[in-house]
Amino acid sequence: MAISNIRYGEGVTKEIGMDLRNLGARRVCLMTDKNLSQLPPVNAVLNSLAKYGINFQMYDNVRVEPTDQSFLDAIKFAKKAEFDAYVAVGGGSVIDTCKAANLYASSPTSDFLDYVNAPIGKGKPVTVPLKPLIAVPTTAGTGSETTGVAIFDFKQLKVKTGIASRAIKPTLGIIDPLHTLSMPERIVANSGFDVLCHALESYTALPYNMRSPCPSNPINRPAYQGSNPISDVWALHALRIVAKYLKRAIRNPEDREARANMHLASAFAGIGFGNAGVHLCHGMSYPISGLVKTYKPKDYNVDHSLVPHGLSVVLTSPAVFTFTAQIHPERHLEAAEILGADIRTARIKDAGFILADTLRKFLFDLNVDDGLAAIGYSKADIPALVKGTLPQERVTKLSPRPQTEEDLSALFEASMKLY
Amino acid sequence: MAISNIRYGEGVTKEIGMDLRNLGARRVCLMTDKNLSQLPPVNAVLNSLAKYGINFQMYDNVRVEPTDQSFLDAIKFAKKAEFDAYVAVGGGSVIDTCKAANLYASSPTSDFLDYVNAPIGKGKPVTVPLKPLIAVPTTAGTGSETTGVAIFDFKQLKVKTGIASRAIKPTLGIIDPLHTLSMPERIVANSGFDVLCHALESYTALPYNMRSPCPSNPINRPAYQGSNPISDVWALHALRIVAKYLKRAIRNPEDREARANMHLASAFAGIGFGNAGVHLCHGMSYPISGLVKTYKPKDYNVDHSLVPHGLSVVLTSPAVFTFTAQIHPERHLEAAEILGADIRTARIKDAGFILADTLRKFLFDLNVDDGLAAIGYSKADIPALVKGTLPQERVTKLSPRPQTEEDLSALFEASMKLY
Ligand SMILES: NC(=O)c1ccc[n+]([C@@H]2O[C@H](COP(=O)([O-])OP(=O)(O)OC[C@H]3O[C@@H](n4cnc5c(N)ncnc54)[C@H](O)[C@@H]3O)[C@@H](O)[C@H]2O)c1
Ligand SMILES: NC(=O)c1ccc[n+]([C@@H]2O[C@H](COP(=O)([O-])OP(=O)(O)OC[C@H]3O[C@@H](n4cnc5c(N)ncnc54)[C@H](O)[C@@H]3O)[C@@H](O)[C@H]2O)c1
Ligand SMILES: [Fe+2]
Ligand SMILES: [Fe+2]
Repeated sequence: MAISNIRYGEGVTKEIGMDLRNLGARRVCLMTDKNLSQLPPVNAVLNSLAKYGINFQMYDNVRVEPTDQSFLDAIKFAKKAEFDAYVAVGGGSVIDTCKAANLYASSPTSDFLDYVNAPIGKGKPVTVPLKPLIAVPTTAGTGSETTGVAIFDFKQLKVKTGIASRAIKPTLGIIDPLHTLSMPERIVANSGFDVLCHALESYTALPYNMRSPCPSNPINRPAYQGSNPISDVWALHALRIVAKYLKRAIRNPEDREARANMHLASAFAGIGFGNAGVHLCHGMSYPISGLVKTYKPKDYNVDHSLVPHGLSVVLTSPAVFTFTAQIHPERHLEAAEILGADIRTARIKDAGFILADTLRKFLFDLNVDDGLAAIGYSKADIPALVKGTLPQERVTKLSPRPQTEEDLSALFEASMKLY
Repeated sequence: MAISNIRYGEGVTKEIGMDLRNLGARRVCLMTDKNLSQLPPVNAVLNSLAKYGINFQMYDNVRVEPTDQSFLDAIKFAKKAEFDAYVAVGGGSVIDTCKAANLYASSPTSDFLDYVNAPIGKGKPVTVPLKPLIAVPTTAGTGSETTGVAIFDFKQLKVKTGIASRAIKPTLGIIDPLHTLSMPERIVANSGFDVLCHALESYTALPYNMRSPCPSNPINRPAYQGSNPISDVWALHALRIVAKYLKRAIRNPEDREARANMHLASAFAGIGFGNAGVHLCHGMSYPISGLVKTYKPKDYNVDHSLVPHGLSVVLTSPAVFTFTAQIHPERHLEAAEILGADIRTARIKDAGFILADTLRKFLFDLNVDDGLAAIGYSKADIPALVKGTLPQERVTKLSPRPQTEEDLSALFEASMKLY
């Protein structure tokens, strides 16, 4: 298990200029999105860069929910200058874009598909050295500051996929909870659901010793290695924080304790799933995002339709955990208990239903859209959704219970309406 | 926070030859102690090296509870050959010796004191690159496979001290619980007490945001940074495992579940204290070990007198936590509860006494020697014990409550007899 460096604390961003100086950086690429470029997190970074006289160029053209095109645009920017360090200030969209920019600028002759996950891309191992990347997360969601993953929407194929390699894991994550205070309600909610699903999926993922094939040479093992006693610690801890603080963080922007705890939980869950992996909620979320029609979520200050990542994973969670509970019912029951269910008289064979009910109640309380139907999908879309899930083997095969195409159809169908 | 790589599982040692091949190692230094060289853990490593045709030289002269002399002997061995990788198979004594051998062989013109902790040594930062080191722990104790610390007994000064630098942290820790099955009872007990104290001390250490001076440049911050929300997760998790499994692991060598869990707890607690630090039990343990008279513990197959590290830390724990509870009583009470105390009617101001009583009962149940008197110390030794604690500032200043020399005297005195 490998973990990136993390620095945590209110205001720790102010040292980022010194970190860059320690790294010997002489020409820094600062990436963010248009919305964030006007907000306090980017301001804090700019102040520190100025204070330490760090030479930088800013790219604020990151697309919220990045695409192959938006990745390529950022890569083009990175290739033009000879940057010797990267700073990403934003949510998963920014951090992932910055990882990709660093990777392809460091490997300028590679084709874009070279490093994209197979079977969509070639999934080549990264052997070139990358530049240091400091990630400053501003959502409490993806945990991307701790993972070697960069996700994008492959427009031609209408499906989300990504790049997964330990090489793109940030050198340092600066977790400064002050940055979460500017998040509007739905961004707190949706990025928080991502944390919830990272924790639930990594805790229920296929155990590391049941995964097959197990490459006999450790160097060939995938980043996602199945649930294991170490990732379990992170997953459970993150889940407890979500149970205690997510509602508070959503409802009250002034609740610093709640927002700070969710910010940490997002890194904890990231470390957990970055080692164990995620499974069906994430595997099925990629076509849910990729096939978006006209849905425009509240609070997202963008000009294109999108299904926020956290929403796209959580909407199938009741169906998914009802399906997977057959394999590790005790873990599903334990998760339900942590999320507030009274399990004293519960029967173990009902574990899946109990967890699903707990999740539905949780989402209902938080005014989440009533299932896939509410974000624009109908039964007619199910074949396309299933088709978009099939290439997501990297994660779907970490489901504790194997699934057929019929199973996937049934899961999408069960997720059309939640309440 | 930084964490080394870990591989965990029964039998995972068999891949070590392949790991070395992946590292491109052509000449490996294998370190262990005389006792272990006859036991299954070393055997498993030798088999894998043979299978993958790895060229190696074995050094089995590690001293249990190493000294400056024994470190120097191992360093001499390492300097003679041009090793390109190191493998340490053993407890903390072996892993620490191997770290020192790798460090000084990689920095051949350095004086031994250069890297030893100040104020005893010069505490210089390590800037030379080291060779990869794979640690295979065989005790469930030090967590040295996860830390950048190497401890030895400085004979002239009659005091234990060490080297602390992220640079000496092992490249990979192979945690194979099969290796714990050959441990005799007292080694399980004493190394388990080390885990217990790592968890308790790091959980109660001065919080990271109260430590001073806080070097303004992050690069100058010490490895031990005070308790923080991430080290807390590891400390509490390790403590829960100790509470559940330590007694079982000690009493029944066939209890694989208990021994495997303690093996993992040792790495967890190592990650916790490797980031947060330890405080008074460890600070005071160094003279307790260093000034040893004639004590020869049961089950240690060695020809010199010694106080095993775990024993030397745990004997002062009731006194220490009675003293420190004044600062974070709620954490002390929480620890007592995890260790089995019924705290439903407890008053917060009694937290220290409650934790101390819980520890005393725990130690009594496990037939631990009745205090410092039982291992050969008397009141007359207290000034020397205090004097030996004073240079241990690196850890003692992480105590949540500052101590005077009188306080230290009183703590040693209160630790003479436990029951
Ligand atoms: N790399 C990984 O490990 C990983 C894991 C999960 C998800 N992801 C990916 O990350 C992306 C989602 O990232 P996200 O959920 O963090 O959101 P995001 O980066 O897409 O940002 C969502 C919106 O929130 C705004 N925002 C962000 N921080 C803000 C703040 N502090 N104040 C005000 N507004 C703020 C942004 O400007 C944007 O409009 C998806 O593409 C998803 O697939 C990556
Ligand atoms: N580097 C760190 O982070 C750190 C932390 C705490 C302690 N330490 C140091 O580590 C040393 C103590 O290490 P330890 O407690 O692991 O014990 P150890 O290495 O001193 O070994 C104790 C005895 O147990 C035997 N032994 C070890 N494994 C065995 C097995 N599987 N089967 C049978 N016998 C076995 C050894 O041969 C030896 O006789 C001390 O010097 C202490 O100061 C280091
Ligand atoms: Fe996610
Ligand atoms: Fe120790």
